[in-house]
Amino acid sequence: MKYSLILLFVAFISNAQIKKEQLDLMPWPQNINLSDGTFALSKNFKVNITGNPNPRIFTGATNFLRRLDGRTGLFFQQGFVTKINQDPTAELQINCVQSGKIGLYEDESYQLDIQSNKITINATSDLGALHALETLLQLLQNNSTSYYFPTAKITDLPRFTWRGLMIDVARHFQPIDVIKRNLDAMAAVKMNVFHWHLTDDQGWRIQIKKHPKLTDLASDGLFYTQEEIKSVVKYANDRGILVVPEIDVPGHASAILTAYPEIGSKITAISTNKIERNAGIFNPTLDPSNPKTYQLLSEIFDEVCPLFPGDYFHIGGDENEGKDWDSNPKIQEFKKKNKLVTNHDLQTHFTMQLVPMLKKHGKQLMGWEEIMTKDMSKNAIIHSWKGPNEGLPVGQSVANAAKNGYKTVLSNGFYIDLMQSVNDHYLNDPIPQNSTLTAEEKARILGGEATMWTELVSPMTLDSRIWPRTAAIAERLWSNQDVVDLNSMHKRLKNVSFRLEELGITHIRNKAVLLRNIANNQEIKALEDFSNICEPLKIYSRNKGGTEYQMYSPLTLFADACAPDASDALDFEAAVNLYLKTKNANNQLLVSSFLRKWIAINTDLVNLSSNAPLVQPILPLSKSLSDLSQQLLLVIENKQTPNAVLLNDLIKQCNSKDHADVELAVYTSLKKLIGA
Amino acid sequence: MKYSLILLFVAFISNAQIKKEQLDLMPWPQNINLSDGTFALSKNFKVNITGNPNPRIFTGATNFLRRLDGRTGLFFQQGFVTKINQDPTAELQINCVQSGKIGLYEDESYQLDIQSNKITINATSDLGALHALETLLQLLQNNSTSYYFPTAKITDLPRFTWRGLMIDVARHFQPIDVIKRNLDAMAAVKMNVFHWHLTDDQGWRIQIKKHPKLTDLASDGLFYTQEEIKSVVKYANDRGILVVPEIDVPGHASAILTAYPEIGSKITAISTNKIERNAGIFNPTLDPSNPKTYQLLSEIFDEVCPLFPGDYFHIGGDENEGKDWDSNPKIQEFKKKNKLVTNHDLQTHFTMQLVPMLKKHGKQLMGWEEIMTKDMSKNAIIHSWKGPNEGLPVGQSVANAAKNGYKTVLSNGFYIDLMQSVNDHYLNDPIPQNSTLTAEEKARILGGEATMWTELVSPMTLDSRIWPRTAAIAERLWSNQDVVDLNSMHKRLKNVSFRLEELGITHIRNKAVLLRNIANNQEIKALEDFSNICEPLKIYSRNKGGTEYQMYSPLTLFADACAPDASDALDFEAAVNLYLKTKNANNQLLVSSFLRKWIAINTDLVNLSSNAPLVQPILPLSKSLSDLSQQLLLVIENKQTPNAVLLNDLIKQCNSKDHADVELAVYTSLKKLIGA
Repeated sequence: MKYSLILLFVAFISNAQIKKEQLDLMPWPQNINLSDGTFALSKNFKVNITGNPNPRIFTGATNFLRRLDGRTGLFFQQGFVTKINQDPTAELQINCVQSGKIGLYEDESYQLDIQSNKITINATSDLGALHALETLLQLLQNNSTSYYFPTAKITDLPRFTWRGLMIDVARHFQPIDVIKRNLDAMAAVKMNVFHWHLTDDQGWRIQIKKHPKLTDLASDGLFYTQEEIKSVVKYANDRGILVVPEIDVPGHASAILTAYPEIGSKITAISTNKIERNAGIFNPTLDPSNPKTYQLLSEIFDEVCPLFPGDYFHIGGDENEGKDWDSNPKIQEFKKKNKLVTNHDLQTHFTMQLVPMLKKHGKQLMGWEEIMTKDMSKNAIIHSWKGPNEGLPVGQSVANAAKNGYKTVLSNGFYIDLMQSVNDHYLNDPIPQNSTLTAEEKARILGGEATMWTELVSPMTLDSRIWPRTAAIAERLWSNQDVVDLNSMHKRLKNVSFRLEELGITHIRNKAVLLRNIANNQEIKALEDFSNICEPLKIYSRNKGGTEYQMYSPLTLFADACAPDASDALDFEAAVNLYLKTKNANNQLLVSSFLRKWIAINTDLVNLSSNAPLVQPILPLSKSLSDLSQQLLLVIENKQTPNAVLLNDLIKQCNSKDHADVELAVYTSLKKLIGA
Repeated sequence: MKYSLILLFVAFISNAQIKKEQLDLMPWPQNINLSDGTFALSKNFKVNITGNPNPRIFTGATNFLRRLDGRTGLFFQQGFVTKINQDPTAELQINCVQSGKIGLYEDESYQLDIQSNKITINATSDLGALHALETLLQLLQNNSTSYYFPTAKITDLPRFTWRGLMIDVARHFQPIDVIKRNLDAMAAVKMNVFHWHLTDDQGWRIQIKKHPKLTDLASDGLFYTQEEIKSVVKYANDRGILVVPEIDVPGHASAILTAYPEIGSKITAISTNKIERNAGIFNPTLDPSNPKTYQLLSEIFDEVCPLFPGDYFHIGGDENEGKDWDSNPKIQEFKKKNKLVTNHDLQTHFTMQLVPMLKKHGKQLMGWEEIMTKDMSKNAIIHSWKGPNEGLPVGQSVANAAKNGYKTVLSNGFYIDLMQSVNDHYLNDPIPQNSTLTAEEKARILGGEATMWTELVSPMTLDSRIWPRTAAIAERLWSNQDVVDLNSMHKRLKNVSFRLEELGITHIRNKAVLLRNIANNQEIKALEDFSNICEPLKIYSRNKGGTEYQMYSPLTLFADACAPDASDALDFEAAVNLYLKTKNANNQLLVSSFLRKWIAINTDLVNLSSNAPLVQPILPLSKSLSDLSQQLLLVIENKQTPNAVLLNDLIKQCNSKDHADVELAVYTSLKKLIGA
């Protein structure tokens, strides 16, 4: 009894007013006003819906209840929300004026008003209401014994109408459940476009009933049935997400040409096409001079288009180098006959044939930026992907598309497969502050899209390559342009990352699975600690020339367990900065405790390796770090004067990219510490 | 260079001959002879298949390669095995005489011969070959730098032809991917029957195209389309597993009667039926006197039967108490008219109507043991489930069925939802050593089946309720009767449990997810340690009367993170036994280190709870254990003479089942230690 009273008291005093900075909202809302009160959650909490929403709000509200109940263990009495005005006295009232239509430019705004005894969500449609429910879940607070929401008024709406995530299911097939859990996660951070990259050199992943050869011969049995596609589209629709399919043509065609070699451009290729197992850019390309090419594509579109109710269809169009066009006299003749001077002209000719095939189904064509040539229809959406890695200045490609009169979506800078820091993506704005575009041109920039290419990504590791970084991209595309504080983003991202597990995202749990495999079921603590200062090699350097990893190579290695933004590396950076600013005992201890930890890790990893061959490749790197740490300790603790030659030699070892496909994420901070 | 030489040397010396006891095979093979050599694995390792197998062997061999490569990181050159004699010089040669047919009594034997430069699998069919590949995976050994198999000759075949797992998808729906990963796990321990409990009071989970009301009104939207069912059957078939569907009638009918109230037995029930949300035995029952009942069932069977190519169809038949029959004059009249004296007679009459409906599709009827009445067809398979909990002696029900001339399958003793120790299930033999049955009667006992009822099991926790315990059941059903050593089983099970992660089983990883949620994203170490001495309340006592948990109640609590056979409890038991036998300093330290750990855990949990309400319910139990541990430490370390009254009082607190739906699994050992 006494115990309970104490707890009640603690509960009472710890509901002190929450400050905005304490909230882990992401994307950050446009307007938020907190007041000095709380809404206490109890098992009596219920939801009621009024107005004229799309029925997806019932699924959304029921899922909301289950998630909140799973977090709090309150045993809510309300099981399912299934009809309008089911519970008029419910504490949470949701009112939607109209049914939301999945697509661009739809009103996604909402108002969320939390009072101490009542919560009200007002939204034009269920799409806004779903966003409001996600905000509400992110607002959940607790003291030692109970859960509550801070009283607040929030009005919110997105900055961009296209907040997308692309998943490449060709390089590594991703089963339906993997896609669905990522749709859940997208909805949790208010993203609204799922771009499904369904075909590529490495596989054809969608059933075409009229052409079963496509999956029989070019999928290794790994593809989606049309029923499965429909179930994903329905699932996305329930979460306010548009699905944009991509059938990538005329390049990236090894798979389609494995099934239909007769429409390939290479004259001698008939019997030699096969599913590509490596990564890279390959020659197999559709023959734009062959009527059969268009017939097949038209028949494919006739099946694919009706599966996707949205207005957009992505036809790829990227990375066609035209080598097989150049070497094929028939195609050269076709060019001449049609007065097509360059291969770009030829590709535009090809692409323009697809426009009516799609228009027939009410679809607008979208393609990677290569499709933007002088004769391309202005109705096409240009998907910008090139940037500094391709020799273009940041932002030029998307700006060019807008200037040329095209609607456009930015993916350059959102290539999450490059394993770069979340900071890079977060500060990548489709319309930067210093943009010189006119208002009209800016309006053509629909938003952005994170692209998850999967050359080195299995269903086991996909989530950790997408999340949590993509939540920060979601914020860039939703929130006000001036929401750019990196510290705030990192702090909030930590909690968002944790909460993603609720939706089935496996980025945290699967890391442990990989480490257990590497450790051969020994204790994984040392591996885990080491993984928190290592990051996978960046910008395609892991897969040397695209040939080290075949599509069936193991992705169960240490590099697969590591991820960008290694957590301890961030903390070490902060410690070094503090220490270099003020060399007091506290700051010295901050730094030296990391060094001691790394010395101990190396010892533990060596021990581990005696029964775990997969640990061996890591050892040279952990030894280098341990060696340097030992020297640095002596220096920092003033036991020895710095030996610059030795330190420089040791730190060079720590900059190695030759071991286990990872790099030490603490290298830069170590260098700073040494003053090198 | 020096480093590599040392490693090579270590590698060389540590390939010393493996002893049988070191192998973590499960189920243990019928015959195994190890010799003094090794087969070294390299990236050149390939598989070749000869003979006349079913094509499932290609999927099996390819999956085998990927798993082995994922474990070893060797980057095998062989990607896919797709045809006969694809690689005649491959190191692993698999020969199958004929194509395996999924079903009972099929020859599943295999011979596995591992020589230092060649591995040969010979099997009558691909079914045996698939088993051999699982054995081979379990044989994998390593030293510090490389992987190898011990040279050995194994001949193996199963003791029972029915080695089943039932999953109830009615109480809590389990998505397709959850089912598929469990099929993978079944195959890994050589189980061959998946019994799919598709309907119950809490939901109708299979699409019936002619009767969409069943899923529209009685599934909460959670059901399998027929396409999905087919994909599971195909997936099971590829793994040598028979799928037996269950449509449970005439009881457990709340869901079907929600859709079709007109065929219910309760006279006033027409508009009042609804999907059941609680657990238990409920009255809604089909009306056996109504021709419409049979018409509907016949139409349902006409759709369900063709989806499942196997010979068996489970019609449930259990737990019909007949209350609504007794109170319905029309049914009473029907009984009289048909000379049916008891409700058992009436149920038999009902069941016998189903026999020809199933026979039409080539199916034999199977049902829970209640269907075994004097007039029941001898072709029916009797599924034995009753035992001591239902007032019957162990083994009586299955023996009775066999004596009565029925083929029968044992599930009593394999009820894994009861949260009992693996020991109980492991020693539960369908034909015990002391069986007095004749050879003919014994032959009617087809085997056994673990039953995973899901009243308290979500997709998140399902795997941890099935695995690893079911691997021990698989051994009981496969291996020789005299394989009963509990220590050996526990030792091998530990490794099997680890290896199940490879197949996607989530029992280990999802525990961490649950604990992170409970800890509100604080450090989970203390919770994890405490969970390793706690077990969920057993034998239905958690869900008091079936009413504490509705089907939508949270299963994200501490009890859901805990599992039977709490690992530290087993270790503590061993420590106490040692100490009580020999009270030396070492053994004292063994015991006292546990006690100190538990004192520390309590402190940590109290700290954790200040920001984690879900930790609060655990505190009384951790405090009780901490209090007792403190007193015991004083006693054990001879600092204080035992105060029997105090100790008895404290240990009573440790026997509480009132907190967080768990019990302390160390209670019995503590009691022994005290000598109480």
